[in-house]
Amino acid sequence: MPIDLRFEPGEMPLLTDLYELTMAASYFQMGFNERACFTLSVRRLPPQRGFLVAAGLERLLEALEQFQFNQPALDTLDALKLFSPEFLQFLGDLRFTCDVDAVPEGTIFFADEPIVEITGPLIEAQIVESLVMNQLGVASLLASKAARAVIAARGRRLVDFGLRRSQGLDASLVAARSSYLAGFVGTSNVLAGCRYQIPLYGTMAHSYVMAHDREREAFEHFVELFPRLSTLLVDTYDTVRGVENAAIVARELRDKGFKLQAVRLDSGDIADLSLKARRILDQNGLQDVSIFASGNLDEYRIRDLVRAGAPIDAFGVGTALVVSADAPSLDFAYKLAEYRGIARLKTSTNKASLPGRKQWFRAFNASGGFYADVIGLADEGTTTVAHEIKPAPAEVLPMMQRQFSGGYRNGNRPALAESRTNLLESMAKLEQRYKELERPAAYPVKQTAALNAMLINERMRAERRQE
Amino acid sequence: MPIDLRFEPGEMPLLTDLYELTMAASYFQMGFNERACFTLSVRRLPPQRGFLVAAGLERLLEALEQFQFNQPALDTLDALKLFSPEFLQFLGDLRFTCDVDAVPEGTIFFADEPIVEITGPLIEAQIVESLVMNQLGVASLLASKAARAVIAARGRRLVDFGLRRSQGLDASLVAARSSYLAGFVGTSNVLAGCRYQIPLYGTMAHSYVMAHDREREAFEHFVELFPRLSTLLVDTYDTVRGVENAAIVARELRDKGFKLQAVRLDSGDIADLSLKARRILDQNGLQDVSIFASGNLDEYRIRDLVRAGAPIDAFGVGTALVVSADAPSLDFAYKLAEYRGIARLKTSTNKASLPGRKQWFRAFNASGGFYADVIGLADEGTTTVAHEIKPAPAEVLPMMQRQFSGGYRNGNRPALAESRTNLLESMAKLEQRYKELERPAAYPVKQTAALNAMLINERMRAERRQE
Repeated sequence: MPIDLRFEPGEMPLLTDLYELTMAASYFQMGFNERACFTLSVRRLPPQRGFLVAAGLERLLEALEQFQFNQPALDTLDALKLFSPEFLQFLGDLRFTCDVDAVPEGTIFFADEPIVEITGPLIEAQIVESLVMNQLGVASLLASKAARAVIAARGRRLVDFGLRRSQGLDASLVAARSSYLAGFVGTSNVLAGCRYQIPLYGTMAHSYVMAHDREREAFEHFVELFPRLSTLLVDTYDTVRGVENAAIVARELRDKGFKLQAVRLDSGDIADLSLKARRILDQNGLQDVSIFASGNLDEYRIRDLVRAGAPIDAFGVGTALVVSADAPSLDFAYKLAEYRGIARLKTSTNKASLPGRKQWFRAFNASGGFYADVIGLADEGTTTVAHEIKPAPAEVLPMMQRQFSGGYRNGNRPALAESRTNLLESMAKLEQRYKELERPAAYPVKQTAALNAMLINERMRAERRQE
Repeated sequence: MPIDLRFEPGEMPLLTDLYELTMAASYFQMGFNERACFTLSVRRLPPQRGFLVAAGLERLLEALEQFQFNQPALDTLDALKLFSPEFLQFLGDLRFTCDVDAVPEGTIFFADEPIVEITGPLIEAQIVESLVMNQLGVASLLASKAARAVIAARGRRLVDFGLRRSQGLDASLVAARSSYLAGFVGTSNVLAGCRYQIPLYGTMAHSYVMAHDREREAFEHFVELFPRLSTLLVDTYDTVRGVENAAIVARELRDKGFKLQAVRLDSGDIADLSLKARRILDQNGLQDVSIFASGNLDEYRIRDLVRAGAPIDAFGVGTALVVSADAPSLDFAYKLAEYRGIARLKTSTNKASLPGRKQWFRAFNASGGFYADVIGLADEGTTTVAHEIKPAPAEVLPMMQRQFSGGYRNGNRPALAESRTNLLESMAKLEQRYKELERPAAYPVKQTAALNAMLINERMRAERRQE
């Protein structure tokens, strides 16, 4: 009996949609298990999004390395009375042996651009669909949202405070990791901090103040144990009086040779209160005590506070970030692009897919900025592609890299800190008009002539598939 | 080294905000660990929500039963260099010994009504805050959203298809469980189905059709293995031709003594296509083949399809449901209500809390309908409370029950199916105006005279806490 909030090792492959298994059973019966390629991409950007950030790949690859139906999982499936003993035996022997091409963690991407292509035996590449979509979906969603807060904060520090409001425990870990990737300085989530080596931040809760008979006594007790890293929460009762009490405690602390880190504002008119707090702190000679703001903040409110000149040094961001409140899902699709060497596509209304194994390319100018992307076929070279881009690029780079060969990782896992640095450099090179929080410009993404030709061909072929 | 998507046994207590541990360390140092009561409630209903459904309690209680810092967790905390050996020893010895009062899984509730009260040693009751909020938050959010789809569907069957778009793996399990609780008939999520005994549903993916050279061949292959439970996806290419191909296969199947379950529409003008599909099926004598619709459905689209008379028998609901797209978080707060026998409250702007240990009561009329709730103090009896309700109720029931005493469960865990039945009965008794999907009426929730008196008293006392 598993503990409910945890997964047992063999449970991971059961985190799939039933149809993945019934389709696999049918493929197995028919002997359909030749080489297939599936492509993951986002059909369209959510409202107000000028770009997205790819994330979750490292967690996904780790899960694929471990992919295996153990005996308890097989017993569970057997009890459904849907599957033959031969098929269950086949599942038991199954390991993930596909090739995986993917963009590196932290890549900026746009609609239709493949984030991952998985190529290998049809059943393996199909059966991981739900896991691939779930993990890359939520991680990219939250990294993209966090990147917007980083843009809005213009250099002020951001901390993930979202654990309590995230949609489940897995989401809380993803939120911490994705927001750090996007440029946050840390998280309050202890497990996420320890697992991913993300700096941990903490302040105090209202209950701490309320458990004391007097606010000032609460402040004094807290700094006594943590004289070097205390942030005092000043809005449990009247905020201005709370700041005054914090200032008294900060001066006592200074006399002992320590420094109060910050006061935290969590309610009310934050812009106005931050000015008042700054004035009180400065009047007490506490220019080095920071002001930390939290409470229903998102990129729009952070932008407004920064524009208004509110003297806030750091923001704790919770709910709006960790659920990506204004756009809580990405329209990811994982579509069969090739089977048995033949390109495949669907032509469903508004949900058509791109056929064939693909690569995509980014055009850079001489100063390292990027200004156009091109989606092409896997075997197209950068030189050919470069000729299709106007104005002519100084450099064209292919964006997906081989991450797994035959189920084994190529090379080392990138450290999260390294992916973070790469993303921040890319963000700096992305033109401002694509980074606007509202009504961003549409970044140009084209398709190569070769891909377009295949698309026309395959559309015609699709008609014959219904005869 | 844990596998990233799973939790090791000792990791659960680390799923907390850092400040829970620093506050605990401070309490430990000061010897502050007397009896405290924390109250969980929602400060306000999200837009367009007339009611909420409480869920997640059973998963939470299971986690609390297992709550324990093991040695690897303590080593992890030790490495943070924040905590004394004595405090870490204390954490290692810590077990959850609190009393838990809570509404049963599947209770309909409104703003300010306590869903859970946890009473026990301050440190224990405080340290579980993040876990309590996270788990009851997401489960109640998704149960509330699912209940709206059930209202909209007016008896048509609903299936959770959300795994791929949920915010992480934990959320996918919660979505499946919460939506079944709210009246869905099943889920596509295999692990959720197996863990919680929820009926599993599956159809087929576009890739299955695309892996075949011809659509009709794909249909024939699928029904060959699953002649009793096939749902054919008809929109990979042209939908009407897809239905025609499905009808041919259904007739062949009928000749062999089996029945096609359904065709599935997943794109395009679903209302129009369902009429065309019904006509084609009927013309082929396939009146008993159902029409299953999916693709970007939510309660609003389901309502519109039902109103338009679309002949759809069942809906697969994914993204909008599993992320509660139009309201992706609940404004839950977990607030200290009492410490050392003294009521506590915060008076923060727009975030004030209710003091004292509480109970809340529901007023029923003679026909079993409920029409008003009253929040009072824990020691108020139903008779006293009944006198404060107009019109006089036929019955008044207290809503929170003792679920844990001293860390041990009282009685048996309710089966999910039982909670589901109770909720569906309550939903039937809730007046329609509170169930409207848009602009619902506000259900009356009052506070007892005794609670109001305490509130006034404590507000005055709060002022003195800042002196």
